[in-house]
Amino acid sequence: MKKYNVAILGATGAVGREMLKVLEERQFPIQTLRPLASARSAGKELPFCGGTVAVEEATRHSFEGMDIVLGAAQADLAREMAPDIVRSGAVFVDNSSAFRMQEDVPLIVPEINPEDVKMHSGIISNPNCSTIITLTAIAALHRLSPIQTIVASTYQAVSGAGAAGLAELEAQVRGYAEGKPPVAQAFPYPIAFNVIPQIGSDSGNGYTTEEMKMQNEGRKILHQPGLRVTCTCVRVPVLRSHSISATVVTERKIPVGEAREAIASAAGCRLVDELAAKRYPMPLETSDQDIVFVGRIRDDLTHENGLSLWCCGDQIRKGAATNAIQIAELLLK
Amino acid sequence: MKKYNVAILGATGAVGREMLKVLEERQFPIQTLRPLASARSAGKELPFCGGTVAVEEATRHSFEGMDIVLGAAQADLAREMAPDIVRSGAVFVDNSSAFRMQEDVPLIVPEINPEDVKMHSGIISNPNCSTIITLTAIAALHRLSPIQTIVASTYQAVSGAGAAGLAELEAQVRGYAEGKPPVAQAFPYPIAFNVIPQIGSDSGNGYTTEEMKMQNEGRKILHQPGLRVTCTCVRVPVLRSHSISATVVTERKIPVGEAREAIASAAGCRLVDELAAKRYPMPLETSDQDIVFVGRIRDDLTHENGLSLWCCGDQIRKGAATNAIQIAELLLK
Repeated sequence: MKKYNVAILGATGAVGREMLKVLEERQFPIQTLRPLASARSAGKELPFCGGTVAVEEATRHSFEGMDIVLGAAQADLAREMAPDIVRSGAVFVDNSSAFRMQEDVPLIVPEINPEDVKMHSGIISNPNCSTIITLTAIAALHRLSPIQTIVASTYQAVSGAGAAGLAELEAQVRGYAEGKPPVAQAFPYPIAFNVIPQIGSDSGNGYTTEEMKMQNEGRKILHQPGLRVTCTCVRVPVLRSHSISATVVTERKIPVGEAREAIASAAGCRLVDELAAKRYPMPLETSDQDIVFVGRIRDDLTHENGLSLWCCGDQIRKGAATNAIQIAELLLK
Repeated sequence: MKKYNVAILGATGAVGREMLKVLEERQFPIQTLRPLASARSAGKELPFCGGTVAVEEATRHSFEGMDIVLGAAQADLAREMAPDIVRSGAVFVDNSSAFRMQEDVPLIVPEINPEDVKMHSGIISNPNCSTIITLTAIAALHRLSPIQTIVASTYQAVSGAGAAGLAELEAQVRGYAEGKPPVAQAFPYPIAFNVIPQIGSDSGNGYTTEEMKMQNEGRKILHQPGLRVTCTCVRVPVLRSHSISATVVTERKIPVGEAREAIASAAGCRLVDELAAKRYPMPLETSDQDIVFVGRIRDDLTHENGLSLWCCGDQIRKGAATNAIQIAELLLK
């Protein structure tokens, strides 16, 4: 079996570290693994396959000989490094928002549009985390009847702001127990005992950049250029799993029973939907897993062709690292 | 100035205690104050106007001579005591769900339908907390053009489960800092670091009883029998303020600027809506106040006549105690 040379750009962050774990768990066929980060992290040892791998400084020459580069860095670094990655002959599977809407860059959720991977010119983008989780949950509905509109409100975990976000919630909770005032740096306001209705920056139409991703990326992933999405992105004091409350209108009415069956048998989904028995997806029960959990499926009371539902998925895994490595696996085929 | 004899049924709970504070703050014209609770709490002293008042056991004879009884007890106790309250000649302003949908019982948000108070036959109901906060936020839109539909997702504070809910989140957070596993009693699952997409019980159509209140009570309060509401009620690890993400479709399109102006000048509302300056309502900044804070007002991208917005209000105050005492104030006029 062919083995591959794989680099991780931004290996020391929350997503980069998770990529190492997921590569190991899924037994990705690796010849050489090259974890890359800023000069400050060079030499740091990261756990991998029972041993450790040493972080190297990411430079323009780091990508020579690599087959696949997994991007877990910010958009500006992804933009800076992309030309060198492509020139080296590696395929860049990038988790940042830098290239997602570029026409020659496939934007992939492997359970939804794996065939798009073929059209790449050296770069493939991993979608936004809430977009991956929401679309994985509702893709089965789209296959039954095209989705026209989505009204979504998110309950997003602090891991979306990386290791710093996780540390900040932890510190605020411990500080509260000790009677100390909260210190906010990763987020604009304290997040413990709070919710913050802004993720991303003002995109100019009253929505944030994060909120517009579900419509913009959703259109590309679902091949549905007329898709309209009203999204409200909210940070909540949860560690890793994002939750989304979504009301979805399809071209024809999908009965609740049919929707449940379709979602229960959809790739990447698990149905947890027994309200009377208090069974539904929750962050605490869905973290550190690759599946998107879906429940609370019921008729939308405002639109005859609508359904309302609730889904949860681990933001670092299915929302980032796992989805990226699933994309890399598509490249092996 | 006439003074009134006021009893509080359920005076030792989170809402009952807040009623005492609000009566004092608003200088409600009180002759006698009678705090009532179960036999177990009888004799307990509660702070009031610089001194204390002693809790009495609530019995069928507790209401004689009272002008107003403020109900802060569960629905079953409200149902049990209501006949005696009405027979005593007092007006029962009840915060429970027991009588809200009864035809001869006005259901009042004083900023919206104060005139309905006249039609009472001894009982007036205080609406559900999320319903009060959401409707107070959007009533100004309804006055501009009738609201047809609302899609709402809530972020509800633990205070909705009373003093036990508040204590449980506090205990779980302190326990986390000490490395102890969470104990869940007030809620079906741990609430620290979690969100729980169920409030109330299964109402039979896939919605919870709490979720159906926004439609059922909203129709009555807004005098809009055709109102359709899809609501998802979610408990979040926040102490006192409920937040609601709402997408509202009106009969005619209300431009964002007109909506902002109307909400800014609406009774009981404060507009906090500057996304670029990171200004929007949040639980930590809106707790322990009587105003409903509204922001993130923008065009709904899924419906030409829709607007999307975000609001926060203190669940114990405007969502319960303050609204009830505002109703009592209407009775003085």
